[in-house]
Amino acid sequence: MEISARNGLKGKVESVKLGEVVASVKIKVDEPGMITAVITRESVEELGISEGDDVKAIIKATEIMVAK
Amino acid sequence: MEISARNGLKGKVESVKLGEVVASVKIKVDEPGMITAVITRESVEELGISEGDDVKAIIKATEIMVAK
Amino acid sequence: MEISARNGLKGKVESVKLGEVVASVKIKVDEPGMITAVITRESVEELGISEGDDVKAIIKATEIMVAK
Amino acid sequence: MEISARNGLKGKVESVKLGEVVASVKIKVDEPGMITAVITRESVEELGISEGDDVKAIIKATEIMVAK
Amino acid sequence: MEISARNGLKGKVESVKLGEVVASVKIKVDEPGMITAVITRESVEELGISEGDDVKAIIKATEIMVAK
Amino acid sequence: MEISARNGLKGKVESVKLGEVVASVKIKVDEPGMITAVITRESVEELGISEGDDVKAIIKATEIMVAK
Repeated sequence: MEISARNGLKGKVESVKLGEVVASVKIKVDEPGMITAVITRESVEELGISEGDDVKAIIKATEIMVAK
Repeated sequence: MEISARNGLKGKVESVKLGEVVASVKIKVDEPGMITAVITRESVEELGISEGDDVKAIIKATEIMVAK
Repeated sequence: MEISARNGLKGKVESVKLGEVVASVKIKVDEPGMITAVITRESVEELGISEGDDVKAIIKATEIMVAK
Repeated sequence: MEISARNGLKGKVESVKLGEVVASVKIKVDEPGMITAVITRESVEELGISEGDDVKAIIKATEIMVAK
Repeated sequence: MEISARNGLKGKVESVKLGEVVASVKIKVDEPGMITAVITRESVEELGISEGDDVKAIIKATEIMVAK
Repeated sequence: MEISARNGLKGKVESVKLGEVVASVKIKVDEPGMITAVITRESVEELGISEGDDVKAIIKATEIMVAK
């Protein structure tokens, strides 16, 4: 099966920290990759985001899944 | 102000598609970077995720923010 | 009050695991139900998702709420 | 590759509605399934959630992925 | 039924914008309220967040639900 | 850099609880503020949400970030 979440960034696990219920996994993303963000139109217009801009993709840790 | 979402991946905007309410922003992530995922302990154990593993960080588009 | 998150699946709690800050709740979903996913148009087109398809709804544990 | 999001509910696509940027996919979940929610410990204690309880799993549409 | 998402901020709808699939709802939050954020321990330590600090709660629009 | 998540509510940290991997931060939101929610068009229509309505913005704790 293929999953609709198309943003996949290759990398290597640097460390794993186990808590009782959740765990944090540090990943060194080492290959360039294309990702798509869906944000409000208003944000695009307020920040004036357009093709060619240097930006940062910001992601909350609880929103990142790991595939192995 | 600094934000608690510490995962930031540098890149360049490839394209912007405006809908009425939301927009999609394609970003070419071109620099290696460290990211942290928080997943359930159970997932780590079931997938046997450990240091040194080659993995993919998977992120749903609606969970990615853009900073400029 | 009614909440805009309209996806509600009935079930029975199988187990609860308490951590210091978060807890995991296992739920046996035992009744059929209708759910709606919002994904990118691109994903629908790339996966060729259409009426009648057999699919799986995939949800990260941190995104599921519990009502009692 | 296996993904850390372990919650997978089988079903059939009832309808697809395409917007410019995002699309909604209605899925009839027709098989029982086990899902895990991660919520705050405080919520578990405030709602008094415990084994055997009849509950509802509530999920915002933007947080559901589709695998095909 | 009560929902495990305990963060509820009272306000008045300022405007609604309907897209084909999603809609944006602007809400004027007019009453003080207590909210709880779950972030990584690392973020708390890196930002040095502690009792009494003046902070901002930052939330992506796609993560906010509306109850009426 | 400015971030596309435009919802920012000012407040004061009431308490911090550290777990091994995640932490909860209680924030007293003490200033009115404007927030935008993105929900499905269907939810807006089913709940009959319109300008002037008294509503509640509901947010899962894992979806709230903290800026300091």
